[in-house]
Amino acid sequence: MKAIISVHDRDQFDPTAETALSDRLMMVEIPTPQPRPGEVRIKVSATAINPADILQAKGAYPPPKGASYVLGLECSGTIDAVGSDIATDPDFSWIQEGVPACALLSAGGYAEYVCVDARQVLPIPKVPGSELAPEIAVMGLIESAAASWMVLETIGGLANAPESSVLIHGASGGVGSIAVQLAREWGHRVYGTAGAPDRCYRVEQLGANTCFNYHDDWYTALKKHERRGVDVIMDVLGGSGLKTNVRALKRYGHLVVLGLLGGPKGELNVGRLLSKNASITAQTLRSQVPQKKFAIVDHLRHDVWPLVESGKIQPVIGKVLPFDSIANAHAVVSGKAGEDVLGKVVIRVS
Amino acid sequence: MKAIISVHDRDQFDPTAETALSDRLMMVEIPTPQPRPGEVRIKVSATAINPADILQAKGAYPPPKGASYVLGLECSGTIDAVGSDIATDPDFSWIQEGVPACALLSAGGYAEYVCVDARQVLPIPKVPGSELAPEIAVMGLIESAAASWMVLETIGGLANAPESSVLIHGASGGVGSIAVQLAREWGHRVYGTAGAPDRCYRVEQLGANTCFNYHDDWYTALKKHERRGVDVIMDVLGGSGLKTNVRALKRYGHLVVLGLLGGPKGELNVGRLLSKNASITAQTLRSQVPQKKFAIVDHLRHDVWPLVESGKIQPVIGKVLPFDSIANAHAVVSGKAGEDVLGKVVIRVS
Repeated sequence: MKAIISVHDRDQFDPTAETALSDRLMMVEIPTPQPRPGEVRIKVSATAINPADILQAKGAYPPPKGASYVLGLECSGTIDAVGSDIATDPDFSWIQEGVPACALLSAGGYAEYVCVDARQVLPIPKVPGSELAPEIAVMGLIESAAASWMVLETIGGLANAPESSVLIHGASGGVGSIAVQLAREWGHRVYGTAGAPDRCYRVEQLGANTCFNYHDDWYTALKKHERRGVDVIMDVLGGSGLKTNVRALKRYGHLVVLGLLGGPKGELNVGRLLSKNASITAQTLRSQVPQKKFAIVDHLRHDVWPLVESGKIQPVIGKVLPFDSIANAHAVVSGKAGEDVLGKVVIRVS
Repeated sequence: MKAIISVHDRDQFDPTAETALSDRLMMVEIPTPQPRPGEVRIKVSATAINPADILQAKGAYPPPKGASYVLGLECSGTIDAVGSDIATDPDFSWIQEGVPACALLSAGGYAEYVCVDARQVLPIPKVPGSELAPEIAVMGLIESAAASWMVLETIGGLANAPESSVLIHGASGGVGSIAVQLAREWGHRVYGTAGAPDRCYRVEQLGANTCFNYHDDWYTALKKHERRGVDVIMDVLGGSGLKTNVRALKRYGHLVVLGLLGGPKGELNVGRLLSKNASITAQTLRSQVPQKKFAIVDHLRHDVWPLVESGKIQPVIGKVLPFDSIANAHAVVSGKAGEDVLGKVVIRVS
């Protein structure tokens, strides 16, 4: 099968053919994987670009232990083979060859076939009002909704909580655009930041009370709405965002860091954190232990998919590109293509 | 009544008499407070020195909104008057004039009388094997056990959890010495740090697997025992402790900061936190909302006092001084008296 890897991981494979796609990415021809017990093989229709992929392509983010070196953290397609014990497990009665499905992956989505633990596989929801095929539309929802759930519910405890205030940085991005909708749907006061007025406008359309331009003084603007700060902040900057984010937290607030776009290190005012009894958590979805991933996938299926099927949460797909344009897709997501794309960049594999 | 305040808060009072005890502390004669509905008045037998008192005496830590400017976060004594509705509330049937009691206070313990919400009042446990009067012995247990519970159970989730690993900094101090015993009692692997070999020895006697001298390279020593780091760290340094503490955390670990002895600010490697899916929480007991304090006091009574009465958790009292020696007691606790005192410094008020 065809698969895409980082040039830095070339030594992990013994391909029968290879083609350079850029100075970082290459397409290789490798054996199609066989599902082990408990696993499902998906014939991949679509995958999508996540910021972690860009880092991994650079050689800066090796995959979790035991995971494939093939890139790609999510996919949709058709179940194509099942592990020996799947057919007899009543939890997996819906999992059968030929059934459309999507999955949250630890790796391996940039390929024609991928094997994944059946507990990370989901049905593909119908997306009302979308002109996109369901297997394309769902790519705006797997990683994005899983990461949003992890931050907002698992850490922030917001699913069945009284009205709280939430600030979502990068709110026009893949994860942010879903987090805004989920927090709004749960009845919270939602604020976002984005990098341009048209992006802010779009975030407000998705349901944010107000979206601030992060090139401006968003802190002062936010404090006009939430004098005491916000309960939960979803951050993608890391080091450079620490100072202002901690200032923007309310008493007992949670800052949840998902990314390091502003570098890994920054000064932390522990005294300020102490005066608020506040917390900082840094989490990536990819590095969660399997049991946490299974639990999140279960919540997607039972708590988020119904909101998708009733039209309350909509995927935001910025662009769909073919499999061999994946280097271009990386350039678009890392802002190097000179294009302003809103939401997820999806790859059509077959 | 006699009460002790910071000279910086002199303007908050209109005393009928005053005596300077040091350049920071003064004894004043002020009206005895009257219990409001829901409150209890305690005739104070003993109070104790907490690090927060030292800061407050300096003028660097004002009391929580609405709390008295009289210093003191805990006391023991005798119930002396009760608010109008206490007698008819079945939850408080044990609360009657003349009954010995102790309390976790928001302020006001350095005084002959203090009024406190009845939900922060506890019976005084019997301490088997102690030569100290119960109202003195319990002073090693109120704030210390409350703070330990807050960190180990409320944040670390350790009370009924499978065996975990816990590192307690300042393990020979008031809070640390109780935290060590509580974590050991719950079946965890407990490590401590302290500032001298004899203090380390004492911490190991209290039940720590190993106590490291924090003047040495405790990180390397700890890693020999816990190769992947520890699940929970209780820290009192704040800024200067951030770097090594984050390194010493295990995957999904929690660093809980209770104090700022190493300054308020430090560099945080968010990338390292992210690679571990770890968290940092800063908490003070004094600034918790009342409901959290009530819940913690309830746990002290029902979960910790039985361990005290069965001899499994013992107060560590370093010194008992009279009321008018409180300035000396502050010097001892802040290490300025040239004395090496282990555990709590208690003040006998009457």
